[in-house]
Amino acid sequence: MSDAANTPATAPQADRPVRACLLIIGNEILSGRTQDANLAHIAKRLNDWGIQLREVRVIPDVETTIVDTLNEVRAAFDYVFTTGGIGPTHDDITADCVAKAFGVPLDEHPEAIALLSRYYPSGELNAARRRMARVPRGGGLVPNPISQAPGFYIGNVFVMAGVPSIMRAQLEGTRPHLAGYKPVVSGTVSAFMGEGRIAAELEALQGRYADLDIGSYPFFKRGKLGTSLVMRGVDPARIEEAAVELRAIIKGLGEEPIEGELADEV
Amino acid sequence: MSDAANTPATAPQADRPVRACLLIIGNEILSGRTQDANLAHIAKRLNDWGIQLREVRVIPDVETTIVDTLNEVRAAFDYVFTTGGIGPTHDDITADCVAKAFGVPLDEHPEAIALLSRYYPSGELNAARRRMARVPRGGGLVPNPISQAPGFYIGNVFVMAGVPSIMRAQLEGTRPHLAGYKPVVSGTVSAFMGEGRIAAELEALQGRYADLDIGSYPFFKRGKLGTSLVMRGVDPARIEEAAVELRAIIKGLGEEPIEGELADEV
Repeated sequence: MSDAANTPATAPQADRPVRACLLIIGNEILSGRTQDANLAHIAKRLNDWGIQLREVRVIPDVETTIVDTLNEVRAAFDYVFTTGGIGPTHDDITADCVAKAFGVPLDEHPEAIALLSRYYPSGELNAARRRMARVPRGGGLVPNPISQAPGFYIGNVFVMAGVPSIMRAQLEGTRPHLAGYKPVVSGTVSAFMGEGRIAAELEALQGRYADLDIGSYPFFKRGKLGTSLVMRGVDPARIEEAAVELRAIIKGLGEEPIEGELADEV
Repeated sequence: MSDAANTPATAPQADRPVRACLLIIGNEILSGRTQDANLAHIAKRLNDWGIQLREVRVIPDVETTIVDTLNEVRAAFDYVFTTGGIGPTHDDITADCVAKAFGVPLDEHPEAIALLSRYYPSGELNAARRRMARVPRGGGLVPNPISQAPGFYIGNVFVMAGVPSIMRAQLEGTRPHLAGYKPVVSGTVSAFMGEGRIAAELEALQGRYADLDIGSYPFFKRGKLGTSLVMRGVDPARIEEAAVELRAIIKGLGEEPIEGELADEV
């Protein structure tokens, strides 16, 4: 079987870990008005595709901040995703900033104009709404099946809306342009014990499994303190090996290992 | 009345806007396992105290990343707050990284040891738990009334737990060390109309109120599209002036202005 046969038609494969940065653009997140609802979804979906989210920055609607941040992170990461600031109003400046960062003009994209013309009733595609059809020269559209106004990509930067339902649809549309590596998988063992009791043996376990990231997360449930121990890596067999040892460690401490996460009640 | 009489005993006053950065430290946020629940709370509470949150970074439990990021942002902002990575396990490396960033040793703090000694039953304050009493030399403690293990501060950096209940308690404990300026206040007028319809007049309004930040945020409610228009600034009178004009603009477009936010049902 050739390599080509293993490669999904829509997504190229990378031969090394692929790292992404997310820029959440918007005063409304930084003021606490709006709770971000996109980070966790993007992290999980990118991981499904073999791309690790390695940094997130939340920045205000300020041109110099957006331009400088974008130029810094697009040089440092394989991919950059942005959310927010691509609507029709004066505070939507993301497209302008991406064009400035890349040093290219911001043009009305004919295909985007066609999409918006079909979406809005006759006479309602005004100058403000036409702003949503502007794409930095050389960029391509990311479809938006919810409300038509597209996202776009240029270079390794993918620009999406902040509204979660629209962002999620646009994120799916970026898939054909992304090369992924192996998804990170995880296994979790929990126990009703403080993390301080298992810390020494957990550190030794991490030492024996340098290819895994082992994390310890406390929780409160039914009035009792507990700890979830999460093992992450690209090889499911290694995670199960570590889990076998972890269950034995927990039993050795006189506690009962519980498979998976326990929801936090704090 | 003297200036001193206007100054709360616990908090000094700044004579210019004060800007803060938040570092959310933890693989569990970047993987999407854990939804951050601290950003919005910190943003609002800091604003109550006259401090503007201007950037947030979510970074992994990687020493070089934490040290480099911390040194970058503590030079760029008045204050830096961190959440996460101060527990008893091997993946809790924030205190070590802060000490490295400041180039100072990480010492057991006698007062922190005393707190933990009273909190844990006899014999249970093991080596792992003693890790939580380590503070970079020259730093001070931030109290934790929930589970005693303190946060700490050094220079302009404030280090807190990631568990929301503990973080919230520790944040209150940073208050005496923070100088604030004028809190930003906001006013909101909503209407059941797409933001594209009001965009041109909104931009003109923003032009007339350069001292305010005017943001436009779409929502869906009862199956209808709407827009919340948020005016933010330090002078409530200016916000009310702009709100009067905004209500007139909305009525001029044949719609009914609604005071305040409408909850999003998406």
